[in-house]
Amino acid sequence: MDAEQLRENAHKMVDFIADYYKSIENFPVLSQVQPGYLHNLIPDSAPHHPESLQNILDGESPNYFAYYPSNSSVAGFLGEMLSAGLNIVGFSWITSPAATELEMIVLDWLAKLLKLPEDFLSTGQGGGVIQGTASEAVLVVLLAARDKALKRVGKNSLEKLVVYASDQTHSALQKACQIGGIHPQNFRVLKTDSSTNYSLSPDSLAEAISRDLTIGLIPFFLCATFGSLNSIVSAYCFIELVMSDALFAFMIISFNLCTEEDGASKNEQPHPELEFQLAEETSHLYVQVGTTSSTAVDPLLALGNIAKSNGMWFHVDAAYAGSACICPEYRQYIDGVEEADSFNMNAHKWFLTNFDCSALWVKDRNTLIQSLSTNPEFLKNKASQANMVVDYKDWQIPLGRRFRSLKLWMVLRLYGLENLQGYIRNHIQLAKHFEGLVAQDLRFEVVTPRIFSLVCFRLLPPHNDEDHGNKLNHKLLDDINSTGKIFISHTVLSGKYILRFAVGAPLTEWRHVNAAWEVMQDKASALLARLSIE
Amino acid sequence: MDAEQLRENAHKMVDFIADYYKSIENFPVLSQVQPGYLHNLIPDSAPHHPESLQNILDGESPNYFAYYPSNSSVAGFLGEMLSAGLNIVGFSWITSPAATELEMIVLDWLAKLLKLPEDFLSTGQGGGVIQGTASEAVLVVLLAARDKALKRVGKNSLEKLVVYASDQTHSALQKACQIGGIHPQNFRVLKTDSSTNYSLSPDSLAEAISRDLTIGLIPFFLCATFGSLNSIVSAYCFIELVMSDALFAFMIISFNLCTEEDGASKNEQPHPELEFQLAEETSHLYVQVGTTSSTAVDPLLALGNIAKSNGMWFHVDAAYAGSACICPEYRQYIDGVEEADSFNMNAHKWFLTNFDCSALWVKDRNTLIQSLSTNPEFLKNKASQANMVVDYKDWQIPLGRRFRSLKLWMVLRLYGLENLQGYIRNHIQLAKHFEGLVAQDLRFEVVTPRIFSLVCFRLLPPHNDEDHGNKLNHKLLDDINSTGKIFISHTVLSGKYILRFAVGAPLTEWRHVNAAWEVMQDKASALLARLSIE
Repeated sequence: MDAEQLRENAHKMVDFIADYYKSIENFPVLSQVQPGYLHNLIPDSAPHHPESLQNILDGESPNYFAYYPSNSSVAGFLGEMLSAGLNIVGFSWITSPAATELEMIVLDWLAKLLKLPEDFLSTGQGGGVIQGTASEAVLVVLLAARDKALKRVGKNSLEKLVVYASDQTHSALQKACQIGGIHPQNFRVLKTDSSTNYSLSPDSLAEAISRDLTIGLIPFFLCATFGSLNSIVSAYCFIELVMSDALFAFMIISFNLCTEEDGASKNEQPHPELEFQLAEETSHLYVQVGTTSSTAVDPLLALGNIAKSNGMWFHVDAAYAGSACICPEYRQYIDGVEEADSFNMNAHKWFLTNFDCSALWVKDRNTLIQSLSTNPEFLKNKASQANMVVDYKDWQIPLGRRFRSLKLWMVLRLYGLENLQGYIRNHIQLAKHFEGLVAQDLRFEVVTPRIFSLVCFRLLPPHNDEDHGNKLNHKLLDDINSTGKIFISHTVLSGKYILRFAVGAPLTEWRHVNAAWEVMQDKASALLARLSIE
Repeated sequence: MDAEQLRENAHKMVDFIADYYKSIENFPVLSQVQPGYLHNLIPDSAPHHPESLQNILDGESPNYFAYYPSNSSVAGFLGEMLSAGLNIVGFSWITSPAATELEMIVLDWLAKLLKLPEDFLSTGQGGGVIQGTASEAVLVVLLAARDKALKRVGKNSLEKLVVYASDQTHSALQKACQIGGIHPQNFRVLKTDSSTNYSLSPDSLAEAISRDLTIGLIPFFLCATFGSLNSIVSAYCFIELVMSDALFAFMIISFNLCTEEDGASKNEQPHPELEFQLAEETSHLYVQVGTTSSTAVDPLLALGNIAKSNGMWFHVDAAYAGSACICPEYRQYIDGVEEADSFNMNAHKWFLTNFDCSALWVKDRNTLIQSLSTNPEFLKNKASQANMVVDYKDWQIPLGRRFRSLKLWMVLRLYGLENLQGYIRNHIQLAKHFEGLVAQDLRFEVVTPRIFSLVCFRLLPPHNDEDHGNKLNHKLLDDINSTGKIFISHTVLSGKYILRFAVGAPLTEWRHVNAAWEVMQDKASALLARLSIE
């Protein structure tokens, strides 16, 4: 790196990025590009001679970058920029003491803000680590649990190992099972329904475990879900607010998929019609990837007790809603996390940190290391044996790793706890306000109780005809989204097609929520009027 | 993001990073920090109130960041910065057409520069994808190969699947096997020796396969290594050039490990003494992680034919030396890559791209998707079925992904092919020059033929006493590194303790190579003088 060359060009790039954000409101809300569009704009091969940065920046249409994600912040960006500038590849303590230790410290900080049990702190046998995504977090703990179990029951027993989760669990768990060689038929996707607000019932878990034990299978892993409803919307969607005097929009492109179509229960597809509709939609804007959404907050304490008494690993996926637990009034929802072996929260979802930054805590770091180190004996040096250092390469899939703690550190320092709490509370207030608006309109119903910042609602089915209701809400969603002013997502819960309104963008204000609701009401009125004529 | 707030703070950060690079020469070459040092410099918990950026930047001692990595460039940094600024999480085409398509295009560009077979281009059934690291690259293709094989032979045959590689292969393959549930005893680490310059002999592969077939095992995966010697040095080391009038240094901290101690052949540890020494060293600077290093360039064509005739997946790991193949004169070394099912090269190693950017190409993208998609049926929308779009989430472990193609795109455009070729050729010239210096000093020998930019050499053992020679070279390494002026790494090949000199830092010049050699000669003279007195 030549320092002055870096300085000059990086200042140019800063202005390019700032101008880009400044002009965002002039962009069309929805990119209308077709597959292959970029291919037509870019030469077929790399240039032979160098180009200048100015030339490159001048050539970039903002339309190259079709979508604008939400949950970043200046603080997160600055941290990411610093990390890129330092370009440290700190896979073990010795390769970068700073990258390793800052990560330990910042994750201890965050654990304390979340009031996680002390066992999760780096000062004991556990500790935190930044993974890229929740998918990697659940994968590494699944592997640790798998190998721990196989050590107990024999390495040829892989085909007997059973994983448990509810049908509200993110499909990342299914992918982790595929990777780890868990047999698909041993992945128990336990049904939930509205009677428990789509949370996993301890009774149904206990029953499933007992059934499996009877036929000689080995339960070894339970994944509980905390706030999965939100996790879908903010995890895998891009929510953007595009404002001008005349135009505003939430751009919510949400990606979720019914576990009915996605999980082990392939043979029970209760809603072929919905499935077809969803499949159709994948060619439009809102591809569905992930899980059925609900307000599920699994009862951690009861589930944890069952897992513990069966010698199972207990993982809590709080990827999205975990952030809310920095507010004392929401911390109660993870009561029982004391029973967990591992806990995951994505700082890149609802915590103003640029992607990627998925915080994972474990109680026993040695189980991770046993699974993911290729040289456990060899690395037993004095520092490691005395538990003096952490080599994060043995806590994750890749060997190399970026200095990701910098951005979380920037967010924590530049915001401070009080502003972060204010950020969370504001979103929840806005969602509560929207919920109130829906409740006042008797044509609609709020389908599941709102806890955090997402509201599940729908037009009530005329004459209690659920089939008709599903078609109606599907049509309403299309009508709303085709305005180009607002984009909302949907899900399917207990066979009902449901609309979802999520608040997650840093710049969202009351007026945007009100205006969004007006669009929805207008479209509902028009739709119902058309129907009554037909 | 508030655009003006971003602009103001990002400009400050640019100056902080540029100043940091400018002042690098004033830093001590070696950080002398102790485990836990950062803990003492940072408060125990996150701040309650926000801090200002200026406050944070003022507080940062450069000593927070103990090491300075090498293979970044202004171009790579700018690309990473733009990616952070856009914060796009483009896991499927629809979530960011730009991120998806630019990645396809840039990897097509790079494939053409490397003259990879057309099957690897995105225009056919294959295509390229950016993984974080070579570890993830080899993992995803191993999983694809595993599941393809299990589909053929039955899902309960996992314990029969066998993986083949040489003892020069990176330990990432071992980790991938662990993750994928391949039985440790089915991971064949085939011995190499100096007779083939540590390349994998097709005969020994054929023999091993035939032996396994006889006992009912199922060979399914072969990993060939291309330029592993270099891959260690640049892959997992930080090479930094710190210059001032009085002081210069290559800072090479290399991480490699003997496969003898690391692989399946745990029972044959021919060098307990060396092992002990290495283990000791892990508490010092040069932790050993990875593989035995050699000049291994496996014979791709012959190996590929064997793999093909046995229905096996053939992966080529060219993580480091692959970069050299953009020069016509080095392209011959990957002749036979036409036989490969997958090929991996790390742009973050020797291609001026900031970490992380590991390019993987496959011939049949559907095998990856079959293994790594959780919803292959569901996502069969018109665009996907017509092969119109790529959803990269199904080519990798995580779901979310960063816009990493931007930095590779910046490097390719800001340098252009001719400068990139010049960069590679310059390093190889410098290494050749160093090789010449060593050859002229009769006390030393060059141990393996140099192909790329790494020289393996040692002090000749007095009286052909190899044991003594090993101790001597180990002592020499210590003496050289303890000058604080230069840091080199070592390896063990066929029981010989060997020193390694790698050229990989963008700023390296002839004078640095000469000066480094002077240090080595001085230390050798002093050491030999001491010995003759004793």
